[in-house]
Amino acid sequence: MTNYPIYIGSDALLRLKEFLEQRKYSGVLVLVDANTQVLCYPLLQPFLPAHSTFEIPSGEIHKNLNSCIKIWEHLTHEAFDRKGLVINLGGGVIGDMGGFVAATYKRGIDFIQVPTTLLSQVDASVGGKLGIDFQGYKNHIGVFCEPQAVVIWPEFLDTLTRRELLSGMAEVIKHHLIADREGWNRLKLTREVFALKLEDLIRHSIKIKSDIVQADPLEKGLRKALNFGHTIGHAIESQFLETSHPLLHGEAIAIGMIAESWISHQEGLISQAERDEIAGFIKNFYGKPEIPSSFYPEICDRALNDKKNQKGKILCTLLDGIGKVRFDSEIRKTQIEKSLDFYNLLS
Amino acid sequence: MTNYPIYIGSDALLRLKEFLEQRKYSGVLVLVDANTQVLCYPLLQPFLPAHSTFEIPSGEIHKNLNSCIKIWEHLTHEAFDRKGLVINLGGGVIGDMGGFVAATYKRGIDFIQVPTTLLSQVDASVGGKLGIDFQGYKNHIGVFCEPQAVVIWPEFLDTLTRRELLSGMAEVIKHHLIADREGWNRLKLTREVFALKLEDLIRHSIKIKSDIVQADPLEKGLRKALNFGHTIGHAIESQFLETSHPLLHGEAIAIGMIAESWISHQEGLISQAERDEIAGFIKNFYGKPEIPSSFYPEICDRALNDKKNQKGKILCTLLDGIGKVRFDSEIRKTQIEKSLDFYNLLS
Repeated sequence: MTNYPIYIGSDALLRLKEFLEQRKYSGVLVLVDANTQVLCYPLLQPFLPAHSTFEIPSGEIHKNLNSCIKIWEHLTHEAFDRKGLVINLGGGVIGDMGGFVAATYKRGIDFIQVPTTLLSQVDASVGGKLGIDFQGYKNHIGVFCEPQAVVIWPEFLDTLTRRELLSGMAEVIKHHLIADREGWNRLKLTREVFALKLEDLIRHSIKIKSDIVQADPLEKGLRKALNFGHTIGHAIESQFLETSHPLLHGEAIAIGMIAESWISHQEGLISQAERDEIAGFIKNFYGKPEIPSSFYPEICDRALNDKKNQKGKILCTLLDGIGKVRFDSEIRKTQIEKSLDFYNLLS
Repeated sequence: MTNYPIYIGSDALLRLKEFLEQRKYSGVLVLVDANTQVLCYPLLQPFLPAHSTFEIPSGEIHKNLNSCIKIWEHLTHEAFDRKGLVINLGGGVIGDMGGFVAATYKRGIDFIQVPTTLLSQVDASVGGKLGIDFQGYKNHIGVFCEPQAVVIWPEFLDTLTRRELLSGMAEVIKHHLIADREGWNRLKLTREVFALKLEDLIRHSIKIKSDIVQADPLEKGLRKALNFGHTIGHAIESQFLETSHPLLHGEAIAIGMIAESWISHQEGLISQAERDEIAGFIKNFYGKPEIPSSFYPEICDRALNDKKNQKGKILCTLLDGIGKVRFDSEIRKTQIEKSLDFYNLLS
């Protein structure tokens, strides 16, 4: 599936230990945030060789160049050489940023992803996308670079709140919608996230994502399927990041999937029943934070500056029936506004 | 030789024009510095499609994150998408930094190197090493990423001073010393840089470098041959960068080659006659800027933090006879100090 091992399951930390014993790294840094320092690091620590830790404040607003500079400084100060290793213990922020720092320090040292959130376990752990936010644009600066290994230990999920679990479910839902119609028909009957067998869902999501990424690692075509929900979702996420009540990534993507399903229906690609089924399922899971219409113009502007665009057109991945997509579909600002109206009016 | 075209010669700009006509880039940015804006850009401009330019102040001290931020901001402001192109028109600073910015903007857009100095034509143009300086360490943050094309137009060299030409000659000399004993025996008879056929030397250097890089693109082994002169040379360059009279890169590497030849002889790898021949030739070309002994401790510290090191050892590429090298040779701080004494005492 991938060029590097993905250890999933209750023995994942033991297998990481064996992996590290085979490699002889000259130094190991464990990157944590305020949460994983307290909740996850003590669980990982017994499985590691000698190492140091470095803590970044929690949250997407710290996924920026200033944090990178602090980590680069630490690596420099500790005289990390090219045989050093960075272990990223945390969610998407830690994984994306720690990976980017490692991939650019001395033109690249090894890193291992140990995702601790459902979101990062099913999404950020596969695909080699690394990066940081820049001037309000998500992942605007970054590289493609694969880790040496990914370690998915489901017990880390016990440290999460229900809100965080739900955020991760957004990508699980997405993987069903873009690639597994039958799976969606089962999933849509679920009413409670804690009742789900998460390890099975993680394996399912990683299988779908890694198959897509293998076929198109640099996102020239097929991989754009994974962007469903993300053109509008990212724009919403960035917009709310500047308010006093930011959304979690998955919460924004959930709204993005409702909006882009509305556009998919408007373009004649899915039925009204399918659209309403998706919207109803997501709304039941996530509740419905209001998007003030005063945000619309800026959300549209942000969507226009999305990395996936070309030549000033907003290119979006739409559903083409459940389980399939049509990528590089041009959408208009008025469609975004109307899709947000549809979302806001959901009862 | 390489995975991308290298256009060398009087028709190089015409071939660039044809290349750009085949690709349909959504936007083109030409990155220049204060010198190339005036001296080189007017020569290149007629061969380009619609484009904008962005100017960075000249000099190595501007090869830093702040300059990157300005270029990233410009690309963002101009709404460059993933089908955009950056053309780097300048020496190593512009090429290394502009390449790094392109390779990380939206996780990587295309870039073309148009090196305008002898140094960048024979060195930076091949090998995919990109990066910026960080806290006094050269190229401390960067990536490996190949350009779409390299354009070497020898007439740009007419814009250079003798000092700049000589700086570039350091890498030409290095390529002879590490890989072409017969070539060195011819080159060492030269007394005047302006008497040389530069286009032939450029082709010779690019051939040697690209053969080495092809065999070992990520510098796991053989490629380290190219680091001859650079462990001590980089440290000297960084040190002088903080004075009021910085050295050009090649000037520092020239001193580094003398120092590392002295160590090569001390380690029994080259004869005293060979060492003195190298030192005499380089000194004749470059003159001999004094290195105050008060600089020695910091130069040693900088060498210790060189990217090529492992586990606190200073690993250096030494000559193993002329035309061959022994890489990953551990050297001691006292050897660096003595080699600098040798250099300072050259008559």
